[in-house]
Amino acid sequence: MIARVLIKPKEGILDPQGKAVERALPTLGVESVGDVRVGRMVELRYEDRAELESLCEKLLVNPLIEDYEIEAVE
Amino acid sequence: MIARVLIKPKEGILDPQGKAVERALPTLGVESVGDVRVGRMVELRYEDRAELESLCEKLLVNPLIEDYEIEAVE
Repeated sequence: MIARVLIKPKEGILDPQGKAVERALPTLGVESVGDVRVGRMVELRYEDRAELESLCEKLLVNPLIEDYEIEAVE
Repeated sequence: MIARVLIKPKEGILDPQGKAVERALPTLGVESVGDVRVGRMVELRYEDRAELESLCEKLLVNPLIEDYEIEAVE
């Protein structure tokens, strides 16, 4: 099976990459976009959901500052 | 509306972060995970889908080496 792990900074945690995108918007003439948060996506093949969750917590995600979701692709 | 832009390295493009995760798997005792690709996720609020697509192509994505999808959240 294929899944995507979607990782983003927790609410209230500073997100300098998101702020950099927001600051660039006026220069690009983009007016209808805001509240930008930049995170990571990890796409992978897995067989065992419990093992995948353990991998997220041990390696892919820093649970102090990041939230994650696992999304099935197929 | 809220959307997520999911960005990943194109097929055939080197993905050193993905390889680094794959190399760490045996050490962690993870056997059922493979084909890891590491990309980015940008979550944002938008009103105009065409403007969002233009932002992806101008700022968020490097179309030479990356593919992206826009996923509606709400």
